[in-house]
Amino acid sequence: MTIARQSFGQELDSLRFELVHMGEIVQTSIEKAVDALARRDKALARSVMDGDDEIDRMQVEIEDRCISLIARQQPVATDLRVLGTGLKITTDLERIGDHAFDIAKIVLLIGDEPLIKPLVDIPRMAGIAQRMLQESLQAYLKLNVQMAEKVCRDDELVDQLYHQVFRELLTYMLEDPKKINQATQLIFVARYLERIADHSTNVAEWVIYLVTGERLRKNK
Amino acid sequence: MTIARQSFGQELDSLRFELVHMGEIVQTSIEKAVDALARRDKALARSVMDGDDEIDRMQVEIEDRCISLIARQQPVATDLRVLGTGLKITTDLERIGDHAFDIAKIVLLIGDEPLIKPLVDIPRMAGIAQRMLQESLQAYLKLNVQMAEKVCRDDELVDQLYHQVFRELLTYMLEDPKKINQATQLIFVARYLERIADHSTNVAEWVIYLVTGERLRKNK
Repeated sequence: MTIARQSFGQELDSLRFELVHMGEIVQTSIEKAVDALARRDKALARSVMDGDDEIDRMQVEIEDRCISLIARQQPVATDLRVLGTGLKITTDLERIGDHAFDIAKIVLLIGDEPLIKPLVDIPRMAGIAQRMLQESLQAYLKLNVQMAEKVCRDDELVDQLYHQVFRELLTYMLEDPKKINQATQLIFVARYLERIADHSTNVAEWVIYLVTGERLRKNK
Repeated sequence: MTIARQSFGQELDSLRFELVHMGEIVQTSIEKAVDALARRDKALARSVMDGDDEIDRMQVEIEDRCISLIARQQPVATDLRVLGTGLKITTDLERIGDHAFDIAKIVLLIGDEPLIKPLVDIPRMAGIAQRMLQESLQAYLKLNVQMAEKVCRDDELVDQLYHQVFRELLTYMLEDPKKINQATQLIFVARYLERIADHSTNVAEWVIYLVTGERLRKNK
């Protein structure tokens, strides 16, 4: 009995490590996608798009492991929350991966056109969103509620930056209609980054639920 | 024992009905949001935004029911898939609700400005997206794989309409810079509708998994 429980504990740990590993891959995707945009690197953008299948596969694998552990082990309390939040967090990570894919696709759409402006706030947003993801993964690994709460607070920062970027790009469009197409694409990039921050906040909220058993009000 | 199993079966049915009920509320939200946009009805838009809390509450309640049924009943096979897909479908429905909220918010942003063009394709997209959601919910209720597969096929249609709307609005912006701000907002509306169709497709894919036990390749 003791051995079986320990082995279940190990399986839960290994599941959590796999989820964090998926998160790290997703984080690299965001980094590469924004880098590809800044450096107009179409090959890099394509590699992000190609990598998305692997992220989807990891999601399916993690989901299957959660479901099969629930079926085999009939867990309760914290153990059950590990598996329930596993199912939820993997969805958020996969959505973040989708948004990295979306950003990479925009790099290909913009193609060789010169950028209408030096990118400043978009890489800044990306930096904060990536840090939020990283910290939510750390919070998950260490089951640290304080770290998770910090992530939730940082979401406001990204929202503000998004509105700033949006207004700025609108000004560019108004000044020069030739910039409209690309500015629209860059607004999408900003929007995706804002969503990535939302999903990272979701992960942090799941960590709080995992540790405390308490549900927060949904992040919007 | 027989009584307990039947009561579990009833609990699963009641959970499925609640999920469909949530889906219907979410569908009404899309309908109202797009209607508010077409009729410049700010009060209606506000009612969609106010209704979002209720949708979030339903999600939390359904999730809690899934988790607690898993804990109490230790289900396997199809029963477990009902609960696993319950956790997943509720996330998709909540995201659809968020997008209805996003569209309603845009109605308020546009305010009393006259619309830059008669809305044709956006209500069409909304109509298809709503039908997809409705059919995916019907497929879920009836565990009907053929219906679910039809939803997956319709997703392509919405994607095509999205690209058409996007190109058209870009043309409006290029012709008249005064239209840029609103056209950008309408592009977002189209994008949200395209996402709503994606999430409806996800629901349909979960139905296929629920019935067959087979996972499809993720909808992108």
